[in-house]
Amino acid sequence: MLHQNAELFLDKIQNNSIVVGVLGLGYVGLPLAVTFARNGVKVLGFEKSSAKAESINRGENYIADVADSDLAAVTNETQMLEATADFSRLKEVDVALICVPTPLDKFKKPDMSYIEAACEDLATYMTSNMVISLESTTYPTTTEEFILPILQKNGLVHGQDFWLCYSPERIDPGNKSYKTHNTPKVIGAIGEDARVLGIALYELAIDTLYPVSSPRVAEMVKILENTYRFINISLINELTLLAGKMDIDIWEVIEAAKTKPYGFQAFYPGPGIGGHCIPLDPFYLEYIAKQYNFDLTMINTAGRIDTIMPHRVVVKISFSLNKQKKAIKGSSILFLGVAYKPDINDERESPALKIMDEIAHKGGVVSYHDPFIPEVVIHDGHRYESVPFDDQVISDADCVVITTNHSNIDFEKVAEKAKLVVDLRNAIKENHDNVFKL
Amino acid sequence: MLHQNAELFLDKIQNNSIVVGVLGLGYVGLPLAVTFARNGVKVLGFEKSSAKAESINRGENYIADVADSDLAAVTNETQMLEATADFSRLKEVDVALICVPTPLDKFKKPDMSYIEAACEDLATYMTSNMVISLESTTYPTTTEEFILPILQKNGLVHGQDFWLCYSPERIDPGNKSYKTHNTPKVIGAIGEDARVLGIALYELAIDTLYPVSSPRVAEMVKILENTYRFINISLINELTLLAGKMDIDIWEVIEAAKTKPYGFQAFYPGPGIGGHCIPLDPFYLEYIAKQYNFDLTMINTAGRIDTIMPHRVVVKISFSLNKQKKAIKGSSILFLGVAYKPDINDERESPALKIMDEIAHKGGVVSYHDPFIPEVVIHDGHRYESVPFDDQVISDADCVVITTNHSNIDFEKVAEKAKLVVDLRNAIKENHDNVFKL
Repeated sequence: MLHQNAELFLDKIQNNSIVVGVLGLGYVGLPLAVTFARNGVKVLGFEKSSAKAESINRGENYIADVADSDLAAVTNETQMLEATADFSRLKEVDVALICVPTPLDKFKKPDMSYIEAACEDLATYMTSNMVISLESTTYPTTTEEFILPILQKNGLVHGQDFWLCYSPERIDPGNKSYKTHNTPKVIGAIGEDARVLGIALYELAIDTLYPVSSPRVAEMVKILENTYRFINISLINELTLLAGKMDIDIWEVIEAAKTKPYGFQAFYPGPGIGGHCIPLDPFYLEYIAKQYNFDLTMINTAGRIDTIMPHRVVVKISFSLNKQKKAIKGSSILFLGVAYKPDINDERESPALKIMDEIAHKGGVVSYHDPFIPEVVIHDGHRYESVPFDDQVISDADCVVITTNHSNIDFEKVAEKAKLVVDLRNAIKENHDNVFKL
Repeated sequence: MLHQNAELFLDKIQNNSIVVGVLGLGYVGLPLAVTFARNGVKVLGFEKSSAKAESINRGENYIADVADSDLAAVTNETQMLEATADFSRLKEVDVALICVPTPLDKFKKPDMSYIEAACEDLATYMTSNMVISLESTTYPTTTEEFILPILQKNGLVHGQDFWLCYSPERIDPGNKSYKTHNTPKVIGAIGEDARVLGIALYELAIDTLYPVSSPRVAEMVKILENTYRFINISLINELTLLAGKMDIDIWEVIEAAKTKPYGFQAFYPGPGIGGHCIPLDPFYLEYIAKQYNFDLTMINTAGRIDTIMPHRVVVKISFSLNKQKKAIKGSSILFLGVAYKPDINDERESPALKIMDEIAHKGGVVSYHDPFIPEVVIHDGHRYESVPFDDQVISDADCVVITTNHSNIDFEKVAEKAKLVVDLRNAIKENHDNVFKL
């Protein structure tokens, strides 16, 4: 049995007479907003960047995982999605889905300022009878202990005036099979009413929901998923460094291990872990663990491996040049790919930038090519523009470093034309005397 | 093109006019011997224990993963398998498959004595024209740098008189789907002749072979597979300890994380890692890594978590008793299951024994029930016999600890009858006030 307010709100959801607010229209919020809108739910998207909000209102897409035609359909055609930079319009919504970033500061501490700002805006403008759901990855207890007090500070009461859930996004940028609507979604709520309303809400847009008993369980689920990846990538990176010393091709080892039909999942080495999830989320857990007087030794150890990987790559580049009697200083070094994974236009936390930075500081003449990223700014503020990809550029470089295995680059040609290649992604399958792998 | 000797030997294999020797008739060797014999290959098994060898010759099975009828068929009926404790009969075989244990000594260093003894026996009795393959898990370089010199010491020459391979066993005791014949088998050999002969040999009995470029790659494959498991069990154990402090049910978290349709594989917490593979194999790699001046920090860290888990369980038992105003000292504590995993009769490296040992030393009155293991000897030499499983035994104990979730135990009844339960395996699904989970 729901309380009366909740019962009325449930009717409102089930009659689809709600307006869903999505806070933050990035790689999580925009696909989510479009998914609801495509299912005939009225969506108002909130985005601090007026430029982005205006772009959406013109039907112009900026997120690779959203099909241009899907965005155009819900803006220009059905007009189920509108975007705004005016957060006072939170007054107009019945639902708020918080999809703001949760980065780390430079000391690897959670930067909760985006979540805090979104909740402060909500506290200021929200009206009675709202469902609020956080989608950002964060440490367990955030929903109950960080968000709830902010939302209640102006007198509205949870369970009576609003209902709070946590339902972590599971976006995998570039994944062709699993999108927002068909990736099972975990949801934890504070109390039974919030649970029923949260499920009813998401059922308007998401194929499969998996309810858990509390927000903190749902928060831990997301952290576990990404910590698992973090730990395993770090393990394979460490084993790769050992394998290199033992004259063992780790890529061959992984392919063979994959033939075990149970109990193994393959992870691949690389120059370090990039992106906005895997290298960050474990440190959210480490942050809260410290408050419980608990030391997360696996995350800690994996973090050290990840931190050192770009430097180990610089050493690899140096020793590869050494075989041709060259030093880093004065050598021209071309990096192929600065995105943190193939076929996306996102260079956040990309190890390529850290490697470029160190090579430049050691006197290397750095350039890069990335078909998805026209320019980057590295740690010291230096700005690089992507150079064209042609035979001359490849053969002129003293060393070509494959940092990202974008699928539209012909790596066999690189192996043929280049003087020296350091292949960090096993992009070149054939054996060549001038190619050295991680 | 094979060399002439190898060409002749290949004919011999393909005509099935070989005798295959299997050295060590344990949980790896006996299934392998039976698999070859069932495929019409003449097998002579070598086993130091005369009692075991005689048992086999009577068609009496002692390995759970071998069907009694399969053993009887190849001994009593077709007589394709014979066992002996007389290693001088190695003179009679054309092939030697080495399936001896590779344990750790008490300082967690590889104990290579079984492999060494097998190779010494081979060196003494082997004749020209043999294929020798090692199946035991071991550190990379073992085949080329440890075994090869022993085999050559009496004048026979590799590539001319014999051919050496490494093909790691992938036995998963108790696995109902994957047995010796249908688990893909990795094989690495020294040189092209050994590779061709090794593949031809195993093709007589194994459905799918996966050849790799060298023995050391194959050695690393097996270590990677088990190190992956070791690391991930240790991670989930550490997260479980934190989750306990944060009032988060880790079992619920894992079930929810499993709904992610990509990039996640579930591992489950427990009182520590048992058995003869997962807790040992990573330390084989650590051993050789030190010779390469390399510190395997992930294995190290995971090892520390694994080492401490039985003690953490003792603390958990103590704090659970504390809620009922009881101490360990003088309390009767019944352990359900001493096998290291469900439904097998193997207690090697089982954390249950370590927990029983510590509880006994703290003055607890220890007993256990295990339907598969009638008696055990723990660290201090104390011997226990399995007590009967009945309502009286359960209700008499001050605390029942579920250490192994054997499928033929009614754990819901345990929850109903016991005063207090510490459930280390999530065996009890319903909520009970007297049940505490890891």
